[in-house]
Amino acid sequence: MSQVSQDDIDAAPGEEASMEARKPYDIDSLTDVALMVFAERGYDGASMDDVARAAGITKASIYHHVAGKEALLERGLSRALDALFAILEEPDAAGGAPETRLRYIVRRVAETTLRMQPELTVLFRVRGGSEVQRAALDRRRAFDHHVAGIIERAQASGAVRADLDARTVARLVFGMSNSVVEWYRTDGSLTPNDVVATVVALAFAGLAATAASTRGGR
Amino acid sequence: MSQVSQDDIDAAPGEEASMEARKPYDIDSLTDVALMVFAERGYDGASMDDVARAAGITKASIYHHVAGKEALLERGLSRALDALFAILEEPDAAGGAPETRLRYIVRRVAETTLRMQPELTVLFRVRGGSEVQRAALDRRRAFDHHVAGIIERAQASGAVRADLDARTVARLVFGMSNSVVEWYRTDGSLTPNDVVATVVALAFAGLAATAASTRGGR
Repeated sequence: MSQVSQDDIDAAPGEEASMEARKPYDIDSLTDVALMVFAERGYDGASMDDVARAAGITKASIYHHVAGKEALLERGLSRALDALFAILEEPDAAGGAPETRLRYIVRRVAETTLRMQPELTVLFRVRGGSEVQRAALDRRRAFDHHVAGIIERAQASGAVRADLDARTVARLVFGMSNSVVEWYRTDGSLTPNDVVATVVALAFAGLAATAASTRGGR
Repeated sequence: MSQVSQDDIDAAPGEEASMEARKPYDIDSLTDVALMVFAERGYDGASMDDVARAAGITKASIYHHVAGKEALLERGLSRALDALFAILEEPDAAGGAPETRLRYIVRRVAETTLRMQPELTVLFRVRGGSEVQRAALDRRRAFDHHVAGIIERAQASGAVRADLDARTVARLVFGMSNSVVEWYRTDGSLTPNDVVATVVALAFAGLAATAASTRGGR
């Protein structure tokens, strides 16, 4: 993969960042920049000019690395989906009692959502406006379907309530977890661990008071 | 508010709908059409040409009623936010034990989300890209803040677990409920009541098996 030389970089007068030595971009670091821009402006609202401006290089330099905006989206979506599917292959997700697997997956999905917030933000907002977006939606559906299967097994085992539709539960629990990309800010007082613990607590026990919770246990 | 006359309507040859007598548009029915278009294509991805095409009238006819795309967005967002704030004034939301009020509000928000899916879809996707959008985000935050206050009172009363941050709980519970706009389809096998009941069940009791739930109670 070719690198953008320093000559390609547009000096942006008055911006502190432009005064620092900047590492040449490669396709991965350009994808990082594009994801931040897409997460902020929305994919449809963002242009390659916006990406170039955020990267501090010319649009021509970006096209040296990548065919266009949708190719950057495709790379970002693949990162997000690959990370989610990798969770399902982790030993604690792949084996053991279904309720334990489920709890592990819910926790790891929330952790991954917070750790890869730009990637997951862009993934969660995809609505299927192109072939690339529809393929991403298909993979998301396959992920939910897999987890719904684990919920059904947990229900059959008696460890999880059996009166709720497993597919609906999967969507709602991930809907709750996914929502963090819309409101969690790293500069706030909540740590990612606080958020993950709250997601898991609500998903598995809800708001009902228990002896442990009213004494302040988590 | 003036009405669009039948003369303004562009006949769209080959479309069945154009064969039927069509009621003249007013600002409310144009807002209905715009919300469907915004929900489908995203606000940034939708143009006034898209709205005109969906309405089957000329763009000039739309501008006869409304200043532009953002004015249509503003009307849609006001509908959504007015409906949410109206819930807080309903007697069961405004008075009684805090846990009962909270349960009522969560149920009514989920019901309203399903009943006004286009309005709420557009509201939940607003990211603050304009003055109108920032004002809507401010009202959403005020709503969440109000509900977080009720959660705190429910925690203080002992009826709701006190080990979770009330603001985070408000965001996660509404994150779960709001997610229905992204996946609920009226042509599926789930009724709106099924979805609302599942949201309330998860929010207040989570997935944990109880004697009632494993016997199939709801």
